[in-house]
Amino acid sequence: MYKVNEYFDGKVASISHNSADGKATVGVMAAGEYEFGTSSVEIMTIIAGEMKIKLSGETEWTTYKKFDSFRVEKDTSFQVSVTHDTPYLCLYL
Amino acid sequence: MYKVNEYFDGKVASISHNSADGKATVGVMAAGEYEFGTSSVEIMTIIAGEMKIKLSGETEWTTYKKFDSFRVEKDTSFQVSVTHDTPYLCLYL
Repeated sequence: MYKVNEYFDGKVASISHNSADGKATVGVMAAGEYEFGTSSVEIMTIIAGEMKIKLSGETEWTTYKKFDSFRVEKDTSFQVSVTHDTPYLCLYL
Repeated sequence: MYKVNEYFDGKVASISHNSADGKATVGVMAAGEYEFGTSSVEIMTIIAGEMKIKLSGETEWTTYKKFDSFRVEKDTSFQVSVTHDTPYLCLYL
């Protein structure tokens, strides 16, 4: 089954579950800027709108759009900037 | 911002929000069969795995896979069958 989680004082909500592709969360980030840490490899997919992302160690922001995915290595972090409520999928490897 | 909702005795959870594409929910259906009613046109998109769908008035089930979308007209209903926890996006028109 699934579990509902909230982060950043309720500005990010996610539903963790076991999808056909494996352990995942689907969620929404309210407009704003965030930094997430990873404890496993993560594959993030944008579900609507777009996300600006800066992986740790990078100096440039990269924009990802609907159905684009990006990979974040284990034990690192990434910054996110979104201008709208933005739904996403995070798959844990 | 968003709002977390639960249906079918907690077997379906969703997060309603205002994405760049408009009013939407992103959610997860636990494995099982469901029937949803609509009060506006809905565009459903599968985010992982697959969904078997039967629109009201149809006799056949249709299988939709990852990133496939289907349209449900206003004031109708549709049946869903999923074998895994299945994340989806619902866009309201």
